[in-house]
Amino acid sequence: MTDSVQLLGISNAIVDVLAHVDRDFLQTIGAEPGSMTLIDQDRAHEVYNQMGPATEMSGGSVANTVAGFANLGGSTAYIGKVRDDQLGRIFNHDMKSLGVDIRLQKSADGAPTARSHVLITDDGQRTMQTYLGACLELGLADITEDTLGSPKAILLEGYVWDIAEGPALARKAVDIARRNGTAVALSLSDSFCVERHRDSFEEFVRDGVDIVVADEDEVNALVRTSSFDDTLTALNDYNNLFAITRSAKGSVIVHGDEKIVQAAAGVEAIVDTTGAGDAYCAGFLFGWANDLPLSQCAQYGTHCATQVIQQLGARIEPGLLDGFEVR
Amino acid sequence: MTDSVQLLGISNAIVDVLAHVDRDFLQTIGAEPGSMTLIDQDRAHEVYNQMGPATEMSGGSVANTVAGFANLGGSTAYIGKVRDDQLGRIFNHDMKSLGVDIRLQKSADGAPTARSHVLITDDGQRTMQTYLGACLELGLADITEDTLGSPKAILLEGYVWDIAEGPALARKAVDIARRNGTAVALSLSDSFCVERHRDSFEEFVRDGVDIVVADEDEVNALVRTSSFDDTLTALNDYNNLFAITRSAKGSVIVHGDEKIVQAAAGVEAIVDTTGAGDAYCAGFLFGWANDLPLSQCAQYGTHCATQVIQQLGARIEPGLLDGFEVR
Repeated sequence: MTDSVQLLGISNAIVDVLAHVDRDFLQTIGAEPGSMTLIDQDRAHEVYNQMGPATEMSGGSVANTVAGFANLGGSTAYIGKVRDDQLGRIFNHDMKSLGVDIRLQKSADGAPTARSHVLITDDGQRTMQTYLGACLELGLADITEDTLGSPKAILLEGYVWDIAEGPALARKAVDIARRNGTAVALSLSDSFCVERHRDSFEEFVRDGVDIVVADEDEVNALVRTSSFDDTLTALNDYNNLFAITRSAKGSVIVHGDEKIVQAAAGVEAIVDTTGAGDAYCAGFLFGWANDLPLSQCAQYGTHCATQVIQQLGARIEPGLLDGFEVR
Repeated sequence: MTDSVQLLGISNAIVDVLAHVDRDFLQTIGAEPGSMTLIDQDRAHEVYNQMGPATEMSGGSVANTVAGFANLGGSTAYIGKVRDDQLGRIFNHDMKSLGVDIRLQKSADGAPTARSHVLITDDGQRTMQTYLGACLELGLADITEDTLGSPKAILLEGYVWDIAEGPALARKAVDIARRNGTAVALSLSDSFCVERHRDSFEEFVRDGVDIVVADEDEVNALVRTSSFDDTLTALNDYNNLFAITRSAKGSVIVHGDEKIVQAAAGVEAIVDTTGAGDAYCAGFLFGWANDLPLSQCAQYGTHCATQVIQQLGARIEPGLLDGFEVR
């Protein structure tokens, strides 16, 4: 039933504008360290004008995962909205050059391509101020049998719920996926995003989603617990496959009665944590899409995340799993 | 006589599009390893479409030097042409955020902001395919008493000669500089550029230029020699101050009978040689503008170049000379 695409991502298409800042800068612009804040165009200009020189590279959480999955050797497609401007062309180029099949045309008018000001402090933590621009125009009409096809899995991100038609287009995508034997994965994006959309997420996870990829805080927010032990208990009540990252504590895979604990790998110096979760998700789903045991999927995820936090930028390099030995 | 600006750069305003490639890729697109080739818009699309994912950051040889000079704590201004598009706004932002006084308005129409596809091979060498776009529209009208002011020095780059009105606007800048007691520095850009414009460069160096900053190959091309010993002999016939970089062999400062030999610093791993010469130029001119002995200027230059080749990208980080000890 499925076509040759293993993973199709549906998400906000964003160009990252990365700069190193000190803690004082975050205070100056009133940003909570480690947070992702949605901002409008005026505020985006304000933040950018106060920032130092930056580096631009394609980003977006699930877009990073799709790019990473492609770089691992998987076949991928992508649905996200950019405008036909220089940043939009950069975003699409960076995906296409990895072999990602871009399913939507660039918008000829409307808001400019989205950008996220990624402010990196000395400890490698990133604080994001995101202007969604063209992403906000992603709508129901963009999700069709044609654009979705019948991949092995689709991957949605929680941030899609920040778009007006987001919840509806996610539901439409699930309906099409169900008809075509396509699995549905959801990345929970961030814990504030989960707080913003908890009820809708919970309903969606219980009815529609097969795989949830998230960090500990996000899952805690979803099931309304504050300790990970309580979370594991609460997950007994869910049928989904959960892949939960826990930073230095590694990751835990939960699937019904099955629990797999995966340790984190040692890292000499963290350069930039941007994309750690996205890279984990790429490695994990790559293993899953190739029908590997869950313990191996977790090792793939860990390996990808470990690499990405030791570089500036959120996308893993090609060939990362070449010669990788499963323990 | 001079105003508070120490260094004003006049050059091609370019956004770098950086990607790692293998040697085969250079052969595929027919690029000579290590060269800088000027390409038109069609060819730019062709090269970009064949490239992998890239990172965008502000570049341009003398623009890098001006940014570096500002980052060392110097006061700077800049004359270069960008269009009012996303890349042009990025270029200007990255300069302004360092305190560089941008002297020209962005063009409302015409060709898009210039970009250079910087293809980096595993040995850290870069090969550049440059589309000059808006830069080609820099003209005589942009060089006036108002835009130039009376800085301590202006810095031109050889690449300006690739613009139709380049030689004429350089001459006009020298005339204004002379009237205002401003020194004139010239970066020779690359040896192919020197070959393209040798007669004009020679005339300009003999009549107008105070300081020449260049690498060994460029100076060899200028004085038509093939060995550095012959070059040093030929320079006896010039009155300029020459700062000549020689990669791993360090650098040599020549000023009349005075010769200073500066060793290179040890480097563990070269990441990307992009901007080594530009960074040297920033350090050297920063010392010169602060009336330091030439031996110290050479040490500053070496320190800046050593740092920049150990990172991806051509612009040095702020505060690089803080705590630097002159030997």
